[in-house]
Amino acid sequence: MKKAFLDYIYQLQEIITTSIEETDGKSKFKEDVWERSEGGGGRSRIMENGKVFEKAGVNISAVSGVLPESLENSFNVINTNFFACGLSLVIHPKNPMVPTVHANCRYFELYSSNGVLKDQWFGGGQDLTPIYLIDEDAKHFHEICKSVCDKHSPNFYKIYKEKCDSYFWNKHRNESRGIGGLFFDYLRSDHNYKIEDWFSFVKDVGNSFLKAYIPIVNLRKNYNYNSNQRNWQEIRRGRYVEFNLVHDKGTLFGLKTNGRIESILMSLPPKVQWVYDHIPEKDSEEEKLIKVLQNPIDWTT
Amino acid sequence: MKKAFLDYIYQLQEIITTSIEETDGKSKFKEDVWERSEGGGGRSRIMENGKVFEKAGVNISAVSGVLPESLENSFNVINTNFFACGLSLVIHPKNPMVPTVHANCRYFELYSSNGVLKDQWFGGGQDLTPIYLIDEDAKHFHEICKSVCDKHSPNFYKIYKEKCDSYFWNKHRNESRGIGGLFFDYLRSDHNYKIEDWFSFVKDVGNSFLKAYIPIVNLRKNYNYNSNQRNWQEIRRGRYVEFNLVHDKGTLFGLKTNGRIESILMSLPPKVQWVYDHIPEKDSEEEKLIKVLQNPIDWTT
Repeated sequence: MKKAFLDYIYQLQEIITTSIEETDGKSKFKEDVWERSEGGGGRSRIMENGKVFEKAGVNISAVSGVLPESLENSFNVINTNFFACGLSLVIHPKNPMVPTVHANCRYFELYSSNGVLKDQWFGGGQDLTPIYLIDEDAKHFHEICKSVCDKHSPNFYKIYKEKCDSYFWNKHRNESRGIGGLFFDYLRSDHNYKIEDWFSFVKDVGNSFLKAYIPIVNLRKNYNYNSNQRNWQEIRRGRYVEFNLVHDKGTLFGLKTNGRIESILMSLPPKVQWVYDHIPEKDSEEEKLIKVLQNPIDWTT
Repeated sequence: MKKAFLDYIYQLQEIITTSIEETDGKSKFKEDVWERSEGGGGRSRIMENGKVFEKAGVNISAVSGVLPESLENSFNVINTNFFACGLSLVIHPKNPMVPTVHANCRYFELYSSNGVLKDQWFGGGQDLTPIYLIDEDAKHFHEICKSVCDKHSPNFYKIYKEKCDSYFWNKHRNESRGIGGLFFDYLRSDHNYKIEDWFSFVKDVGNSFLKAYIPIVNLRKNYNYNSNQRNWQEIRRGRYVEFNLVHDKGTLFGLKTNGRIESILMSLPPKVQWVYDHIPEKDSEEEKLIKVLQNPIDWTT
């Protein structure tokens, strides 16, 4: 399973970075292959200052070793070895009319100290973070999410859409990071689904990413925008930073397992603003977004 | 003691904001008085887009109530009421040759559920975060810190300077947030110092802030700078954000006690950049700063 998943994510990284380069039309990804002293490593691909994409990272990491004490509580284990691998991507477009996007798929194994496999699970998802909310784009993104879920179970979309809204809740702001999508974790073999079934589900979600996102980029990348809209984008990016550094488990996992810091923090946006007590004008497009972030809605009905 | 300390910090806020307005010469502070539903409140004063200061916050908060469960471990207590008040300031100048600065003084009380005072302590400090390191400024700042410590004990400067270097260590970057100053916490009455002695020490440190910082501002505020130096400033501000959101106990305390979010996060810089894997040129001024941040030095010898 480890090898099959690794093969899959290396292939997916190639497909996604190729498509993003084509969509951008100007910049290319820079590749960094890195090793972790305690075991494992990764392959980071980062694009900066593209025509369409101001910053994009599509990273693979596969790390292993002794689970740090600070993470034993999270997994409810002691004296455990772990293997964790995944693909993680974050794309920050230049044009505020093009939404930011994040996607991730990951696979974990835990072993007892004599090397016996004790636990294994998949996780992942994809979610959209618009700066200006265009309903049509939100619907498109969620419909792709729903159709890939429906192939596996009629219940999955509802469950994993709600998990997404709850995971990306920026608690101290009382608003969601974005308009959601899918989030799932601890997908373990049980009496309904074997681990292979979850692998198939995770692959289908990963394979749906480009269909969910690239059409939105192509629709909006040439929209006009002004400096006020750009400021709003940079302010919203501040909220993205707050979520990732204060709440995001993936970021904290990376920091606690001594991952490569530049690869972990590639998710942070290129240019960001914090304006004191910024409140959007009443009935503005900016306020429309905030209202939806405070009360996530169902985009597929 | 509560009243005496509150009187002191309200007065200090007035003195500091007046001096900062004079030094800026253009912008004025905006005041927001706020209340916390669970008890207490504060008075925030924020300046934005000044001539010299791009963003400055000088905030008072005084909150009380039941200590949240999530903080019981930090203080090693259960079922406890608390009172916490303090002044906290962060100043982000426009010119990269003028260092960012932070100062804080705070007073805590803990009570048993029947209202009996169980514990009380002071904390605080001040620390400098240059973007470009000018040795003369670092020395000036630390000499003021040392002279105020020496009034109270020949040991204090060394102890609280080291605590400052260790507290503001940005672990995931393996570098300090800045070049330090003073940091102290849990200053409790003991056989050497009564709580009143600590109050006097904390007041002297608070009163030294303007002497430590304003002369540096006046020396550097009219220095020329170019856009590369400004970019470096915004990249360094990214590290400031990382420290405050990932490691800073004050920020986490505010978030966990349902403080006013805009007052807590006023510390975040106005404009920030994250550039992937940014490494300063060899033997540059930027590299000189990094080397000192990685190995804090003694500025008073």
